[in-house]
Amino acid sequence: MRLIGLLDSPYVRRVAISLQLLRLPFEHRPISVFRGFDEFRTINPVVKAPTLVCEDGTVLMDSVLILQYAQALAKRSLLPADLPSLTLELRVIALAQAVLDKSVQLIYERDLRPAEKQYEPWAARVTAQMLAALTELEQELARRPLTAGRAMTQAGISSAVAWYFVQQQLPKVVSTRFPQLAAFSAQAEVLPQFRAAPHGDSQCVPVID
Amino acid sequence: MRLIGLLDSPYVRRVAISLQLLRLPFEHRPISVFRGFDEFRTINPVVKAPTLVCEDGTVLMDSVLILQYAQALAKRSLLPADLPSLTLELRVIALAQAVLDKSVQLIYERDLRPAEKQYEPWAARVTAQMLAALTELEQELARRPLTAGRAMTQAGISSAVAWYFVQQQLPKVVSTRFPQLAAFSAQAEVLPQFRAAPHGDSQCVPVID
Repeated sequence: MRLIGLLDSPYVRRVAISLQLLRLPFEHRPISVFRGFDEFRTINPVVKAPTLVCEDGTVLMDSVLILQYAQALAKRSLLPADLPSLTLELRVIALAQAVLDKSVQLIYERDLRPAEKQYEPWAARVTAQMLAALTELEQELARRPLTAGRAMTQAGISSAVAWYFVQQQLPKVVSTRFPQLAAFSAQAEVLPQFRAAPHGDSQCVPVID
Repeated sequence: MRLIGLLDSPYVRRVAISLQLLRLPFEHRPISVFRGFDEFRTINPVVKAPTLVCEDGTVLMDSVLILQYAQALAKRSLLPADLPSLTLELRVIALAQAVLDKSVQLIYERDLRPAEKQYEPWAARVTAQMLAALTELEQELARRPLTAGRAMTQAGISSAVAWYFVQQQLPKVVSTRFPQLAAFSAQAEVLPQFRAAPHGDSQCVPVID
């Protein structure tokens, strides 16, 4: 099994950490969807990171769908089984994902276009959405604290990865207003599964899509 | 259970069709994330469509995560159970989703910015990715035909919704080069679950995110 994509992408990082928590061995190939476009295209013509090449050669993409495959393969779910817990879990995952989706849209607006092609109303809109998602996520963590460790579920993995990404990439935007998220992320980032999937060079354009 | 968002959004439409196939009753509230921003925000501060308000008031978003909740609630999966079939299913879903994600990025570039803020290299990149995803999806359908009907799974729902959306919104880009997709979509669109979730006014900006 090969995981293709830079760990600068929080979506790739979420998969790398989850595969380790599921104890699924994999080879990581850090190819950029920008600088490595031509090489990436030979593996997956859609050029989306993360891409997972399964043992049988099937090429998957999209971190949520890759995680569905990985859990089926490992015969172990990273989601709670009972409906009330699952509902709250899916809400936290969705909020963490909204944080990522909106922060990536903001970074793309800022870093992938010449200044004269940047459109302020769009940047303002996605920034507001990102901050709303962070605020809701912070409230969820205050209400129902997450635990970092071997038994952590997708909500924890996604929240920790999302916080780490935005505070690395958008430190001025998020500042220090999210103490629950910051504390939880600090617990998670010292776990071996997180340390083995370092975020990478925060100076480069995050390479996601 | 309330589903919030316009059916112009293929992601909302995918959920609406899936809920019907799962025989889960729901109320649909067609609020735009643009024109109805303030009203949407009172329901979900992140303003993302689809949003699902569960019976217990929990607010979910992201179509893939909403479908995970809906399947758990209905106690019925819209995915095959065995690993080889699931792997191929997830590949088809990922490709259909890439078609949607890239077509929406293209439409946003074209419709949500003044002409002088549009950036041609970005539009060209996402167009190429969308066409690559359509080409791969067409090949998958040629290899393993999908069946439209009551027993259809997420791969079928997503493929049909994706094709209908791009041929409505980007007819010049996709033209008629995807006969398998076109034929399968035609079968699916006459099903009552699809007809009950009409795409809406194709003249308006598709209102997704």
